[in-house]
Amino acid sequence: MNTVFKDELARVAAMVGNELNSDTFPEEVRPSVLGAAVRDYPCRGGKRLRPALVLWACELFGGAPEQALPAAVALEIYHNWTLVHDDIIDRDDLRRGQPTTHVTLRQYAESELNAPHERATEFGESFAILAGDVQQGWAVERLASVADRGVPPALALTLVRAMQTRLNRGLISGEALDVQFELLDPASVTEEDVLRMIDGKTGAIMEFALHCGAAIALGAYEPDSAPFRALSRYAKSLARAFQLQDDVLGVFGDEKVFGKPLCSDFQEAKPTLLYLEALRRLPHERRSELDSLLRLPHYGDDEVRRVRDLLTSCGAADAVRSRIRELSDDARTALQPLPANSRRDLLDALVATLLDRSV
Amino acid sequence: MNTVFKDELARVAAMVGNELNSDTFPEEVRPSVLGAAVRDYPCRGGKRLRPALVLWACELFGGAPEQALPAAVALEIYHNWTLVHDDIIDRDDLRRGQPTTHVTLRQYAESELNAPHERATEFGESFAILAGDVQQGWAVERLASVADRGVPPALALTLVRAMQTRLNRGLISGEALDVQFELLDPASVTEEDVLRMIDGKTGAIMEFALHCGAAIALGAYEPDSAPFRALSRYAKSLARAFQLQDDVLGVFGDEKVFGKPLCSDFQEAKPTLLYLEALRRLPHERRSELDSLLRLPHYGDDEVRRVRDLLTSCGAADAVRSRIRELSDDARTALQPLPANSRRDLLDALVATLLDRSV
Repeated sequence: MNTVFKDELARVAAMVGNELNSDTFPEEVRPSVLGAAVRDYPCRGGKRLRPALVLWACELFGGAPEQALPAAVALEIYHNWTLVHDDIIDRDDLRRGQPTTHVTLRQYAESELNAPHERATEFGESFAILAGDVQQGWAVERLASVADRGVPPALALTLVRAMQTRLNRGLISGEALDVQFELLDPASVTEEDVLRMIDGKTGAIMEFALHCGAAIALGAYEPDSAPFRALSRYAKSLARAFQLQDDVLGVFGDEKVFGKPLCSDFQEAKPTLLYLEALRRLPHERRSELDSLLRLPHYGDDEVRRVRDLLTSCGAADAVRSRIRELSDDARTALQPLPANSRRDLLDALVATLLDRSV
Repeated sequence: MNTVFKDELARVAAMVGNELNSDTFPEEVRPSVLGAAVRDYPCRGGKRLRPALVLWACELFGGAPEQALPAAVALEIYHNWTLVHDDIIDRDDLRRGQPTTHVTLRQYAESELNAPHERATEFGESFAILAGDVQQGWAVERLASVADRGVPPALALTLVRAMQTRLNRGLISGEALDVQFELLDPASVTEEDVLRMIDGKTGAIMEFALHCGAAIALGAYEPDSAPFRALSRYAKSLARAFQLQDDVLGVFGDEKVFGKPLCSDFQEAKPTLLYLEALRRLPHERRSELDSLLRLPHYGDDEVRRVRDLLTSCGAADAVRSRIRELSDDARTALQPLPANSRRDLLDALVATLLDRSV
């Protein structure tokens, strides 16, 4: 199964890569360095998970993947414009092993326009804001272009409206909640808030990708109908399981495999569900121990072991692990009423694959 | 005429204000402070010039303004999301006499979340980026909603695609060129570059507003047909005349009426057409005089007089003034082939009104 899954995902990645590389949209952007920034992230590759969800959901209901391909590309561009803006907001320097958009543009200003560092930094951030703004336009145009592949214009219009309301607000609200958490005492954040953040930041685009594919196959976008609700439940549970797994791996994982320093959520005092679970389980007098492990300047072997011990001894780690299993099971159960075919098998396999991070 | 014009513009402003105030789109944005920021600029009022262009172009061709009203609102929101992002980029503190979006959000972080100044500033900019991102989604949704008022879905879809390609790229390319000018030697910028910046930053949205209204009335979006080309020519000449007038008023105007310190373009070393005209006219040995008037720390009466004398004595001021007259005449001439009715009269009156800044 895993080989089939990997092959299918690679096939999607190749199709989407071809479409993006030959798309002329960014060429009419001025100056040309901004056009290059618009093309950059979408063409860097990556798993192409969201396009896969569009295409598999379309085929799941017997639709033609050629019709859904522009929607698959649109979702990849949509995901990427939010990354360009998130990277400015989070002041990240690297994305998929290469400089982030605002860093690339800062370097351009320094080397090509001889700008001093501070002005080049401002230029990089300004142009990266504008690059994301153009990419949002590009994503809308690509989704609308399903009408050029035989999708009825009324349905294409409905999908565009859903993308610019349900998806746009969901995704950006999720990002905004995450930004706001940074200014709050993590102990004051409720589990409900954290779940709303995850549902928006990770779940909304998975849901919309699946809905797009299904709508194109079925000829109608009906988010309240049984098949769409099954896909929504799958997306929500999968996204939550994925995020909880991320929390656990961030403390208990292998730094080399995980790709980020261990305990970075504790360093940033993020209200993860793992942290909130520990807070709930610890007796009042031991909570200060948990708080003393937040915002440390450095997490060496010793500090990581202390965090691990505390999360394990109070039962929070096991509780979150069992919740991940429940959510994974729920995602797979959600698929049951859907047509039993090879595409449903791929969505089923995605649950396990996404959780071992072998993709 | 001027009274009719003012009354008609006020009528548009009232209609658009009502629509925006009762629009529930921002209410589903989380956290609610972000939703409030999304609603803020569009509901601050202003001239509502772009909505007027939509509605007048629609009525010019006998269309029903009720059908075009969502498009008019969409253009106002579109204009405003670009202002939210421009204000971050330009580090402006005030917009229509009130704090800009990122400043309002910084103040929220300071007063409600007790954030120290630097973190509050980052929060303000981050949330303002996200507010503009949601507003772009809102604008697309509003334009698409013309389909709820009897506009055929295929036409609504075509208008959305035009907004997210021609308008999006034109407008943002114009803003990007303007940002890039700040890092260039103004003498190295060509007049062609400056015109491209103006056509994008000011002209593109005027053109698209007129095209939207015309397309809804005529039942088709045909940018290469005679009436659409007439509207394009009108928009381009009007936008250029307006911008040149801005350059002249920035040096020769009355600071209290103009609302900005005199000679701020010279202080920022902006390559305005007025500056480039002077550069072209001055003999080589007098150019250093012009350069010595750029980037001064302060422009008092003495400095302003020196700038004025230099621009007047070399003939640049008169040359630009006569160009403004030519462009105004061209904008009015462009209207000639269009239906002769009261709406064409309003577009004609707009040329004079916009240039004396009585609106």
